[in-house]
Order: sequence, then C-alpha cells, then structure tokens
Amino acid sequence: MKLWAGRFTKDTKKEMDDFHSSISFDMRLYRQDILGSIAHSEALLKCGIITQEEYTKIREGLEGILGDIEKGTIHFDDGLEDIHMNIEKLLTDRIGETGKKLHTARSRNDQVAADLKMYLREMIEDLELSIAGLLKTLADLAEQNLGTIMPGYTHLQHAQPVTLAHHLMAYFEMFKRDMGRLKDCRQRMDESPLGSCALAGTTYPLDRGLTASLLGFNGFTSNSLDSVSDRDYAVEFLAASSVIMMHLSRFCEELILWSSSEFGFVEMDDAYSTGSSIMPQKKNPDAAELIRGKVGRVYGNLIGLLTVMKGLPLAYNKDMQEDKESVFDTVDTLKGCLSVFVPMLATLKFNNTAMYKAVSSGFTNATDVADYLAKKGVPFRTAHRMVGELVQSCIQRGLSLDELSLADYKKVSPVFEEDILDAIKPENCVKARNTPGGPAPQQVKKHIEKSRGFLAEILKNE
Amino acid sequence: MKLWAGRFTKDTKKEMDDFHSSISFDMRLYRQDILGSIAHSEALLKCGIITQEEYTKIREGLEGILGDIEKGTIHFDDGLEDIHMNIEKLLTDRIGETGKKLHTARSRNDQVAADLKMYLREMIEDLELSIAGLLKTLADLAEQNLGTIMPGYTHLQHAQPVTLAHHLMAYFEMFKRDMGRLKDCRQRMDESPLGSCALAGTTYPLDRGLTASLLGFNGFTSNSLDSVSDRDYAVEFLAASSVIMMHLSRFCEELILWSSSEFGFVEMDDAYSTGSSIMPQKKNPDAAELIRGKVGRVYGNLIGLLTVMKGLPLAYNKDMQEDKESVFDTVDTLKGCLSVFVPMLATLKFNNTAMYKAVSSGFTNATDVADYLAKKGVPFRTAHRMVGELVQSCIQRGLSLDELSLADYKKVSPVFEEDILDAIKPENCVKARNTPGGPAPQQVKKHIEKSRGFLAEILKNE
Amino acid sequence: MKLWAGRFTKDTKKEMDDFHSSISFDMRLYRQDILGSIAHSEALLKCGIITQEEYTKIREGLEGILGDIEKGTIHFDDGLEDIHMNIEKLLTDRIGETGKKLHTARSRNDQVAADLKMYLREMIEDLELSIAGLLKTLADLAEQNLGTIMPGYTHLQHAQPVTLAHHLMAYFEMFKRDMGRLKDCRQRMDESPLGSCALAGTTYPLDRGLTASLLGFNGFTSNSLDSVSDRDYAVEFLAASSVIMMHLSRFCEELILWSSSEFGFVEMDDAYSTGSSIMPQKKNPDAAELIRGKVGRVYGNLIGLLTVMKGLPLAYNKDMQEDKESVFDTVDTLKGCLSVFVPMLATLKFNNTAMYKAVSSGFTNATDVADYLAKKGVPFRTAHRMVGELVQSCIQRGLSLDELSLADYKKVSPVFEEDILDAIKPENCVKARNTPGGPAPQQVKKHIEKSRGFLAEILKNE
Amino acid sequence: MKLWAGRFTKDTKKEMDDFHSSISFDMRLYRQDILGSIAHSEALLKCGIITQEEYTKIREGLEGILGDIEKGTIHFDDGLEDIHMNIEKLLTDRIGETGKKLHTARSRNDQVAADLKMYLREMIEDLELSIAGLLKTLADLAEQNLGTIMPGYTHLQHAQPVTLAHHLMAYFEMFKRDMGRLKDCRQRMDESPLGSCALAGTTYPLDRGLTASLLGFNGFTSNSLDSVSDRDYAVEFLAASSVIMMHLSRFCEELILWSSSEFGFVEMDDAYSTGSSIMPQKKNPDAAELIRGKVGRVYGNLIGLLTVMKGLPLAYNKDMQEDKESVFDTVDTLKGCLSVFVPMLATLKFNNTAMYKAVSSGFTNATDVADYLAKKGVPFRTAHRMVGELVQSCIQRGLSLDELSLADYKKVSPVFEEDILDAIKPENCVKARNTPGGPAPQQVKKHIEKSRGFLAEILKNE
Repeated sequence: MKLWAGRFTKDTKKEMDDFHSSISFDMRLYRQDILGSIAHSEALLKCGIITQEEYTKIREGLEGILGDIEKGTIHFDDGLEDIHMNIEKLLTDRIGETGKKLHTARSRNDQVAADLKMYLREMIEDLELSIAGLLKTLADLAEQNLGTIMPGYTHLQHAQPVTLAHHLMAYFEMFKRDMGRLKDCRQRMDESPLGSCALAGTTYPLDRGLTASLLGFNGFTSNSLDSVSDRDYAVEFLAASSVIMMHLSRFCEELILWSSSEFGFVEMDDAYSTGSSIMPQKKNPDAAELIRGKVGRVYGNLIGLLTVMKGLPLAYNKDMQEDKESVFDTVDTLKGCLSVFVPMLATLKFNNTAMYKAVSSGFTNATDVADYLAKKGVPFRTAHRMVGELVQSCIQRGLSLDELSLADYKKVSPVFEEDILDAIKPENCVKARNTPGGPAPQQVKKHIEKSRGFLAEILKNE
Repeated sequence: MKLWAGRFTKDTKKEMDDFHSSISFDMRLYRQDILGSIAHSEALLKCGIITQEEYTKIREGLEGILGDIEKGTIHFDDGLEDIHMNIEKLLTDRIGETGKKLHTARSRNDQVAADLKMYLREMIEDLELSIAGLLKTLADLAEQNLGTIMPGYTHLQHAQPVTLAHHLMAYFEMFKRDMGRLKDCRQRMDESPLGSCALAGTTYPLDRGLTASLLGFNGFTSNSLDSVSDRDYAVEFLAASSVIMMHLSRFCEELILWSSSEFGFVEMDDAYSTGSSIMPQKKNPDAAELIRGKVGRVYGNLIGLLTVMKGLPLAYNKDMQEDKESVFDTVDTLKGCLSVFVPMLATLKFNNTAMYKAVSSGFTNATDVADYLAKKGVPFRTAHRMVGELVQSCIQRGLSLDELSLADYKKVSPVFEEDILDAIKPENCVKARNTPGGPAPQQVKKHIEKSRGFLAEILKNE
Repeated sequence: MKLWAGRFTKDTKKEMDDFHSSISFDMRLYRQDILGSIAHSEALLKCGIITQEEYTKIREGLEGILGDIEKGTIHFDDGLEDIHMNIEKLLTDRIGETGKKLHTARSRNDQVAADLKMYLREMIEDLELSIAGLLKTLADLAEQNLGTIMPGYTHLQHAQPVTLAHHLMAYFEMFKRDMGRLKDCRQRMDESPLGSCALAGTTYPLDRGLTASLLGFNGFTSNSLDSVSDRDYAVEFLAASSVIMMHLSRFCEELILWSSSEFGFVEMDDAYSTGSSIMPQKKNPDAAELIRGKVGRVYGNLIGLLTVMKGLPLAYNKDMQEDKESVFDTVDTLKGCLSVFVPMLATLKFNNTAMYKAVSSGFTNATDVADYLAKKGVPFRTAHRMVGELVQSCIQRGLSLDELSLADYKKVSPVFEEDILDAIKPENCVKARNTPGGPAPQQVKKHIEKSRGFLAEILKNE
Repeated sequence: MKLWAGRFTKDTKKEMDDFHSSISFDMRLYRQDILGSIAHSEALLKCGIITQEEYTKIREGLEGILGDIEKGTIHFDDGLEDIHMNIEKLLTDRIGETGKKLHTARSRNDQVAADLKMYLREMIEDLELSIAGLLKTLADLAEQNLGTIMPGYTHLQHAQPVTLAHHLMAYFEMFKRDMGRLKDCRQRMDESPLGSCALAGTTYPLDRGLTASLLGFNGFTSNSLDSVSDRDYAVEFLAASSVIMMHLSRFCEELILWSSSEFGFVEMDDAYSTGSSIMPQKKNPDAAELIRGKVGRVYGNLIGLLTVMKGLPLAYNKDMQEDKESVFDTVDTLKGCLSVFVPMLATLKFNNTAMYKAVSSGFTNATDVADYLAKKGVPFRTAHRMVGELVQSCIQRGLSLDELSLADYKKVSPVFEEDILDAIKPENCVKARNTPGGPAPQQVKKHIEKSRGFLAEILKNE
C-alpha cells in the first residue's frame, strides 16, 4: 500500500511502479535527505508539533539510518518510489508511529528541491576545487615554459610566434571564468525551499529561517509556488558545465593535434594513452579524445533539461523528476574528465625543438616585417601589401623570410635596414610583443603572478 | 598487462582505466559480440587461417561463455576495457592459445560497429512491434468511439466538433510515420562492417559476404574507412526516436489537460496514477507527465551524439565510444514509455458527457453557419464576417448559436431558413464533414479499416 | 582587390565572396565599430603612431561616416566582407592615406571581439530594463489581486488554494533571477580585448587601459590568445536567454490554458489576440502561443553556438563568425517577446468568479482537513490516509468537502469539531498559510514590498 | 480591418502585428501558395462552389499576381500577417467579390501545410541534385587518385596506409546515405493536406484527389487533424540536414588539418581562401572553416523545431509558425555550403609527396608485420605483442620499420624471412588489402564503377 493511497481503489501496476520509481538514481541524495529531515524535525519541535522526546527519537532514528546506509547494510525498496519515501518508511519501521509525524508541514516537493540544492551546492564546491587544481597545474606549466617558443595559430595556420606559457595561460583565463560561473550559480541558488511544502506553504508556524540556517543555506526562498517549480539552478549548472566541457574539448583537440606525428609537439605519458588491438605501433591520445567526446553528453543534458522545463505550468509536475539524472551525469562527467585531464596535462612531455622548428618555417614573423615598415612611416595597409608580395615571392623561391638578404628586402622598400634581420628572429618577435596580455615573457610572468594571487584567494576561502 | 601493450613502457593509471573503460555499459552487447565472433571464426576457417579443430574449439568456447553470461555466472573485469577484450580474455582462459587467433583479420573498430548495428537492428524490430501494439490500441479505441463527439481545438480554443475516434486516428497517422522512419533506418544500416578491420580492411582473403550472411545482414559495406567511422545509423535512430517522443509528448499533454478538473474528459485508471505525500485528495496523471518529461532526455541524446560526431576526422576516434550510452538510454526510454503508455491508454475512462457538453458551449459550429451562408451564394469572406458579428452579439447576450431563433438569424441575412437550426447540431456538423480524412463516422470508419490492413501487413512480415 | 591580398595570385570566386561575407548581418555593429576605431586612434596618437593632425582627420572621418550611416546614405559593399573592412574602406576613400594607418596595432580579431562585447553589453542593459518593466507589471497586478483566490495546481490537478497575487509573484522570482544572470554575464565579460590584435598582442607600446576606459570597459583582458578566441560571453548570454524564454514559455502555457473555454480564468485583450480565416468565432491567444514557440529558436541558438565552439583549437577560427547571428536573433527575439508580453499581461481581464469556483470544486482544501487532524494529535500520515478515504467517499456520493456535515466528519474521526467547517473555507485556507513565502495576503504583501525595493534599487543604478 | 475580425471589438496593436506577422519570411512561399490556390479553385469549380467564369477570373488573377511578384512589382503588406492573406487581398483588389470565394472549403492551416510541403519537396530535389554533383566530384577525384598513397588515421595517429581514392570514397558513402535520407523524407511527406481545412475537413464535397494530383502530390493525407498539426516532415528534413552538415564538418576538419603547415597534404585554390588584415603571409582555409561552423546553426534549427513541437496539443497552434525560418535557414545553409564546397574540392591541389612521406614515417606498416607473423602461424595476439616491442625498440633507436635489417627481425622471431622487407612497402601494404571495401586500387576501382552506376541511375530519374 502506497503512503498516499487513501483515496485510491486499486494499486498501481508493476510496470508503472518500475517506470515511475526514481529510487535507483535519487538514492544518491540519501545524506541530504536525512540531514534535511533532521533539520525539519528540529523546526517541528520548535513550533510544538513534536515533543522533545519525539524529536530525539526521530533524530536518532535518522542518524541510525544514515550510518547504516553508509555501512551498506540498507537495501532500498523500488516499490517505495523514491529516497524520501524509503527513508520515511525505514524510520517508521524503526521508531513506530512517531516517524509518521515527520512529514508534517512538508511535502516531497519542497523536500526534493532542498535535497537537490544541497547536493548541487556541495558538488559545485568540489568542482571549484578540481578546477583550482587545473588552474594551478596550468600556472606551474606556464612558469616552466615562459621561454618555450611555439607558433601561434589562427585558422590552424601559422600566425605569429608565441610561447607555450602564453598558450597555457589562455586556458587559465577560460577556466577562471568557469569558476566564476559556478560560483554565481552556487550563490544564486543558496536559498532554502523548505517550508514551501507542496506548493502553498503550510498552516503551521514553521520557522523557515531555522531549517535554512541548520542546513547552511544563505536564506530562504520568497515564494512557495516558485520554490517547488524552480529548476533554474540545475539548468544554470548544466549551462556552466557545458562551457567547461567546451573549453576542455578545445584543449583536448589541441593535444590530439599536437600528439599527431605531423605536429609532434607533445607526447602523452603511457599512463594516459592506450594502444590498438590490431595495430601494434599505435599509441593513442584516448584520454583527450574521450574528454572531447564527453562534451556531447553534457550539451545533451543541458538541452534535455531545457526541453523538460519548456512550457510546464506551475507548480510541480512529474516531468521535473527528469532533472536529477542530467545533473548527476554531468557531475560525474566533469569529475571524471578533470580527474584524468589534470594529471595527463601535468605529465605531458613537450617537444620544444619541434615547436621551435615550426615557428621558423611558415612565415610567422611576416607581421613583424610589416610592423617594421609601419614604424618607419609606411602606412600599415601599404606595408601589409608589400610583405604579402614578399611572402609570395619567398614561396616561389622556396625560402623563408630569414633566408632573404638585406638586398632582397631593400628591393621591396628602401626603408629596410640591417636591423630587419634581427627583428624577425622568433625570440625577438615574442619579446617585442610586450603589451599587457601579450606573449613577451615579462608580461606572461606578471599574468602568472596575478593568477597565483587569485588562486591563493580562492583556496583560502574554501 | 593490456592486450595491446607491447609498445608501452608502463601501465595506464587506475583513474585512466576507470575513465576509459566501457565494460559497465557495453556489456549489454555480449550476445551480439559472441555471435559476431562465431561468424568471424567461420570466415577464418573458410580462408584457412584456422583449422576445423580450432574453429570448433573457438565456437564451443564462445557458446559456453554465452551460456554462462546468461546464467549470470560471469563477472566482467573493468580493467579489460570493454566487452570485446573481456570475451576474448575469457575465451583464451578457457581454450588457450587458439583463442588468440580469433582476433586475426579483425579489429575492435569493425567489431564494435557490427555489434552495435546488430543490437540496434534488433531493438528497432522490438520497437516496431511495440508501436504496432500502440497502433492497434488506437484503432480499437477509435472503433469504439466513432460517434463520441468532442470539441476539436486549434490554439487550445474550441474550433469545430470532431469525434474521439477522429482525434485518436490523428495519432495513428503520427505513429505510423514513426514506424516508417524506424524501418528506413533499420534497412539503411543493414550492411555488415566486418572485414573493415581497424580502418583499411585486411590482407587476409576474408569472405565478407559469409559473415554478413551468417549474421543476417543484407550485405556488406563498400568502404572500410567509412565502415568504422560511420555512426549515421545511431544518429538516425536517435532522430526517429526524438520524433516518436515528440508525438508521445503531445499525446500526454492532451491526456494531462483532459484529466484536469477543468476539462474532465478522461480519468486515468488508478493503476497508472499516483497520489501526493501531503494532499490526500490528489490523483495525478504521473505516467503521462513522466513520459512527456522523458522527451527531454531523448532530444538530449540526439544532440549529444550529433555534437560528438561534429568535426571528427576519419576514421575511428575514441570520442565515438560515447555513441552507446545515448543509444541504450534511448532504447530503454522508448521501451519504458511505451510499456506504460499503451496499457494506460487502453484503460482510460472517457467522459463522453463532458466532451459533448464542451462542444455545445463555445461556438464550435460557427463555421457551419458560415458554410451554410456560403452554400447559399454568400462569398465566404462575407459570410465569415457576418457570423463573426453574430458570435460577438451572442457573447454579449450570453447565448450560444443554437439558442438563437430563426428571426435572430434572419436579421443578419435573409438567406437563413428553418434548416439552419438543424445544420448546427454537433452530430450534423460532424456528419457533414464527409470528405476523406474528415471526422464523419463514415470516413473515420474507412480510415480504421485501411489502417487495420496496414497493421495486418506489418505483423505478417514480422 | 582585397585589402589582404598581397600574397595571393588570384581573386576569390563570387560564390565564395557571397558565402563568406558577413556584412549583411554584422553591419548591425557599425556604431560599436566606429566608436572602437575612434578610441583606437586615440591610443595610436598617444603612443606616437599617428600625429595629432592624423588623429583629427581619422576621428572626423569616422564621425562623418557614423552620421551618414545613421542618415541612411551609406550602402555597404558585400565584396568587402564585413563591417570592419567596409568602414576602413569608407574612411580611406574619404581621408586618403592616413586612413590606412588606423589598422596599425589592431586586427579584425580583437576588433570584432570588442564590437560584439560592446553591442552585447548594451543589449543586456536594454533587456534588464525590459525585464524590470515586466517585474513592475507583475508587482502591480499582484498588489491588485492579493485577495483573488484561485486554485494552486500540481500535476495540473487542483492542489491547494492560493491567490492570483501569489501566483504572479512566483514569476516575479523567476524573472528576478534572470536579471541576476544577465547582470553576471554583463559584468564577467566587461574587459576590453583591444590590443590583443590577431592573437599575440602587438609590438607597439599601445595603452590598452586607454581604449578600455574610453569605451567604458571595466578593464582589459589578461591574455591575447584568449581574447580573440573567447566567445564565452555570447554562450553565457544565450544560456541566460534560454532560461528567460523557458520562464516565458511556462507563463504563456498557463495563459493559454487559462484562456481556454474549459478554464475561462482570463480573457486577453483584442489587441493581443487574433482570429481565424475560416472559423468566425475564434479568438486565439496568438501572442502567448508565439512566445511559447519562440523558446525553440533561442534554445537552438544556444546549442548552435555551443556546437560551433566545440573542439576549436586556438586562437581565432572562421567558424566563430557564426556567433553573431545567434546573438542577434536572440536579442531580437527577447525584445520582441517582451514588447508584446508585458502589455498583453497588463491588459488581461481576469475572471475572479471562475477562479473562485474552481477552488471550491476539486477538494483543494483536503490538506487543511489533514492538517486539522494533525494539529489535534493524529500523526500526519494517518490523517492523510483518513482524508484520502473521506475524499474517495465524497467522489462516490458526488459531494465536496464543505458539503459534508459534522456528523460525516465525526464518523471518520472523533477529533473533528464544529470549527472544521470554518477551517476549510478557501479564504481561511489561504489566510492560514501564513509562513514567509506562503499565499496568505499578509505574506504576499510583504513580498511585494520587498520586491518594490529591489526594483527601485535596480532602476536607480541604471 | 483584419479579414477575420468580425467578432472583435478593437484592432490589434502595432507591436502585436509586427511580432505576429510572418510575411517577411513566408513570402518565400508565394509560388507554392498561388499554385495551391489555382488547384484549389479548380476543385471549387468541380464541386460547383464557383462557376467556370469565376474560376477563370480567379485563375487569371492569380497568374497575374504570380507574374507581378516575379517581376518585383508587388510590395507585400506587413499588416496582412502572412503570404496567404496578402495574396488573397491582392486577388480581391484585382477581381473583386469573386476573390472572396477562393477561401471556401479551405483554411490557412491546410494551406500553409500544403505550401510548406511543396516548397520542401522542391528544395529537397534541388539538394539531391547538389549532392549528386558532390558525389560525382568525389568519384572523379578518386579515379584520379587510385594510387595516391596516404596514411590512414585512427585517433589522428598514423594507422595503416590507404589511398586518397579510398579516403574520398568513404565520403562518397556518407553522402550517398544522405541522399537516401532526403529521398525517404521527400517520399514520406508526399501527401496533400488540402481539404483538411482548419482541422476537421469541410462540409463541401471537395475532391481531395484532384488538388493532390494537380499539385503533383503522390496522394492525400488520411486524417484532417493530423494534416494540420503535423510537422514531422520539417523535423525529418532538419535531422537529415544535420547529418549532412555533420559529414561536411568532418570533411572540412580534415581539409583544415591537411592545409596546415604541419600536414601540408593539400593547398586550397586562392579562389576559396582568404587572407588576414594584419598578417601578410596568411592564407586561410576559410571556406572549410565556415562550413564546419555552419553545422551549429543546422543542429540549432533541428533542436529548435523539436522544442517547438514538444507537448503541443492538437491541432494547429500558433507556435508552429516557427517552423518556417528553421527550414528556410537550413535550406539556404545547405545550398550555400554545397555551392562552395564542391568547387573548392574540385580545385584542391594535393601534395602527393607529402602524403607519401607521412606514410613512411610513423610505422603505418606495423600491422603488416604482425599479419606476416600470423600468416606463418604465430597467434595474432602474440604477433601483436612482438611487433609492439619491435616498434618500441625502433623508437628508442630512431629507426623506422623498413630501416631494420633482416637480422633485426630474426632476433624477434625466427619465422621472419627475406620477403618481410617487401611486405612492408606502402604500395604493397595497400595492394595487399584486397578484400571488398579495402584500399587496394582494384577494390576501390570496383567501388567507383558501382558508384557511377548509382549516380547514373539517380540522374536518370530526375
């Protein structure tokens, strides 16, 4: 007999129970559910719905259940629909009639919203720490590679020389923004829905501030209908996660390119690579590929939940049960990806020679030639055209820009002088890009220092 | 030691193994994998790679493993990555060195493509049968309700009277198209990839036609690179499934509306409804809501896999491992939804009185008044305007169109005669819409008959 | 001849130009582009790249172009690819060689990022104002309807009585969170990318702080590679917009339901409704339907841009040109929807009688009966079961809870007394839900007051 | 005054008209709309609703309007909502009262469905032709490159040698499946909805078969409610288009990789490349990047329309107006992409030397060594391990497999003989993969021949 079945004349069908039941996945919320119930029972005590003795029985009963779940001695019952009903039933089995009082002034609607918020808040905190770990790894690697010159690309074509440090710090900025989005999401949702009950609050003089503060919320929600029909926090989390995965997919794409025999910029540690069942020579950057692939499921989870919520009237609708699996899968995916990505990154072997060689070929210093002219008074557009023609003639002659003689340069424009040959050396090109945010080691060093300060601040607050 | 590890100097990390391993979900393909291996070993025998004796050992070994898996006595090993490696290892453990010959002229790349195609083909056949069951239920219900008059809606406003049979048969058409899409998908993918090996075929004179025919494929693929990098079939299946779920979501939306106290057109059987943990009176159409909600995850799976495949160079990339969970989850979702939806539909209690009453209010017969005028020579646009004004005056006087007198009608136009009052009775309005596809019972009956023929044809071919 | 064509030996094909050109949509950025160029020219002046005289020529040239564009006398040239090249060409045509100096120490890559950020910042500010208007309308309507009783729904079933004010204020909370997300997005992106040039900064001693401050940015970006490859701000805006549209779709769904003949809770003003070309009686809530439908394109824009960005290596890639249309379309959609939704909402005619009548039918007060029992010491779960059976018997007898006699109540439990009849009157049920966030007029009033304070604060800061 | 305004007391607001109006985009359907109206008028004539003379007036009126639209002399009126109302108004202006009879036995609901189906059918035919052009280009290029050896990749690592012909023919297979999906979609939707009217058919004895056949439909729909609420065809088209774009994105990704200085396999013609406004040396594969990027908008259009249709009750709802722009944009995108992609492909300059060189490095022949051993009786798994260790020692010694001596080989296994050195030459590796679908020139040649047959068949049927 279902706990809600007073008004029904027959039982639900087995296939309906199976379809309907969420215990197989929402059991993940057992701890939040029990802590929420303990806090709720304290509020019931305060407004006189239960006695001190009843409160103690409930609290001890719930703590016992929590302990047993963590010991692994509890088997949840599919027929009891969800984690809330399971725990309530376990409690009643253990402490008798008093257990039935726990659900006064509460509904599964506010209960599940509270559980999910508490869970998500904790998971976001975990993820912020993981990302902080990634940021630290990036800063460390960057520090070691302030002078490691590599080609900067646009359109996957050699563009201008940069350093590996500069390249890595670009990702620092992306993941730093990601932390900001996670934090905003965490703070925006930090209001307790408890006391909203089914949709319309309660007739009991429940102290909503008490449960909120016992559960570490920053306050409580302002409208009971909204409290039980709101899943913004889950959507916002999925959107922030999608951007994180998008960043990881970009980084992984680069690592895959760089691991190719053609680029050869990097070699992954054997610990993060795999082989082929048929081709004995293969060493595949599987970790990077799989992370790149996992962007799909997170985008899918986002659009999935957005679809669920489209056009739902207030307040709670059963459709919203579909919120949890997308959130859980996204949490697991992000954690899994970061747990592999960070050590994989930290153990990469960079091939500095290959990167430097790539800079030298490919005219990455052509802009510097144009800038050279422009600094001597040639309008930039004109200089651009001159150098374009110079490059075209180099291609035809099979030469690079540093293989031209001063005479060759002078043929294009008389303003060229001896110092052009120095100006186009990769090291000098990099050093010369010395405005804030640029690749000059001096600038990147400053950026790393500032970033370390940011990280220290973050970790202090944890 | 990994089976592919000859060229590696150290082992993969535990967290990499966990991240990378797919056995937790691809074990679902165990049967396809074993049948594929048996067929492959027959091809190895035929081209002389293994002897008859070796073939028999392999076949019996594999059949033994299949039996044991189905008995539940096999525990798969996470460290062995996937179902293919697990089964190969089990085989080698059982039959020794001969087992190591099985993977000749094959790669996991063509093996997994074959497994997934075989699995999907079977699942699509199952789903076609389930949908046929839904179609049958619809035809049966329609047959019983040829004369059950209800309002037809556009913009959720009363539009014109139709019958419940007509309404149900609209869904028949939708799900019939869905069957067509599933079948097209099944047929388009029905080519064996075996023999494509890693990406470039094999140097062994393997008879690709043999494995294809042993495994019931309609032929084999034409290009080995494509064979291992193609996941079109999975995407096409997810797209077809998205449309099925979209149709179900529309149907469920209507059942939820109709179950509301305001509509009151239908009552779900207790077996497919649930109650509230707090509100004793509640009887919620949970099954319909949950199915409507589950459209989200299927859309998500579709966009997820499309994202995975975006921009992947040939041939196989590890990202593609992400294909399976979206397919499996979609199969489970569709099966789960249909397993509940069909009996829920079959046990609905329709409230014919409420539906009829809704027709009478709400001016659903206004078009019939305009048609009446048009048939007497008033240009339709003019007739439309006249009736619009008539409705407006009815609203002001609180009357319905059948409560007007002939005199009222004549005030608007002299062409009205006694027969107008008959022409606007709901039964007559419905009966008069007697063109093919219209709601007149005669037409709907024909449609049902034709549909039963279609169903019989389908089921005969199974 | 293209401005960049020095190194090419032939021209691009016409169909390539058409395909490639973005001027048809990025001309929308003309103002941002010109203001950005003026600021950039001031920075060029400061670091001595151009003279005061050149600066004045450039500034006046650009201002002239801006004026002419706004007068509508400029025709952009498709062959010039984009707004940046168009304006540079216009400038050079007007002021000669000096115009060619403007593009020194700059690239279209940082230029377009700056333009798009400036545009988006402005659009977000506009949208925040529009949403503030919506919030004000909601607060006003709520204030007028503190005592308008209506059924609260879960699962689209009558649940418990609430008020229209309470219902409207649920939407207030949703749109208030939306404002928070928009603001976070606006602030997070408020860093100038100018000076990042193509990808690697510049060899000129450009004062990045100067252009940033001239253009009203809060600072400048920290890494040049990130600056030109970052589109997080666009994705974050699209995600925030998706949630806004999701909220609007829920609200519209309700208005469509409430406009149905079955609910009859609301009538839209003729000014926001439309008719049918064939059915003279129809009055359709088109505006609400169309807004609900437009959620699709915004979700689509979000997933579209996420797809574009998946797996893109650093730094700029041409794929990113696809960012603009999704942003523009989303801005237009949100503005269009809000411009219709707010006045439509403000002119709704609510049918208080219909809403009250719906409360009385449908057992919305059943929880109050259970609470009544629980307050007299019956454990809630037991009370719930008792009332469930009471409801079941009412259904069989065709009665509502307030039509039962005290004797009927006493048959179920002896703790019922005379005051039960009063306790279940809708007004009293609502009044009794008097905890913060609940529907009791006293609570909602407080919420409205607090909300007005929030709004005043927002508008003061504009 | 709106044509449907009889029952309204005031006009719609300007901002509502703007929001609501679809003429700005649905004017694209003018031809289909007019042809549909001519066919409908013939049906009206046949069932006696209009006279021969009226029919002639209507037909000539409509033909005149069609001519004038194509001459560009017609300006559509935003206030008239859509193309249907605009054309009806134009007709009435021209031929007077008779024009008002045209809309008898018809509604915009069936009219727009017919228009969109006719449009889409035609566009799909166009696209099939464009894809046939792409297929022909692929077959031609493949034919020229049967012996052009290049590395086959998995995980973007060198895997085994293939030919360019083989690689191109992989894409042939993908786009061939795409044609199948387009054709299935076209055929499935080829039923005329005309005669379904608003939702419930008509009281006139309209010959639905007549209009269907006049408009080239293969038959007519079976249920009027479904006819006006069905948008499956649009979704199916968007799904098929998404897969096409996914294939193009993969191809473009490869062309971008191959155009990089690191790969250097291909050079795009100047006609399909662009330069940089700042870096004079740049030659960017813009066309390929932009096509890759445009996959995003098509995925977005798909998910957008799926979202729109989620949970919509029958029959027509205004939300469905959102179908058209996603279809139109997708058609334009596909046409644009193909119009550039095909000639870009046809004018590529392949660098055969670079491709061959890449094969020689990177151990692509390692599988051949293992196969060599396996053919001499070493179990494949054992051979795989041996070769893995051989590769590992080559890496340490800086050698490739063909630089090893027979003695080196014999150290690993005594079964190696002189012929091993021949067996691992790229040409021989390719030639040896001579099973159907493999890269051996003989096999690819057969595949091309079969494919030409397929193409001839397709083009014959056009």
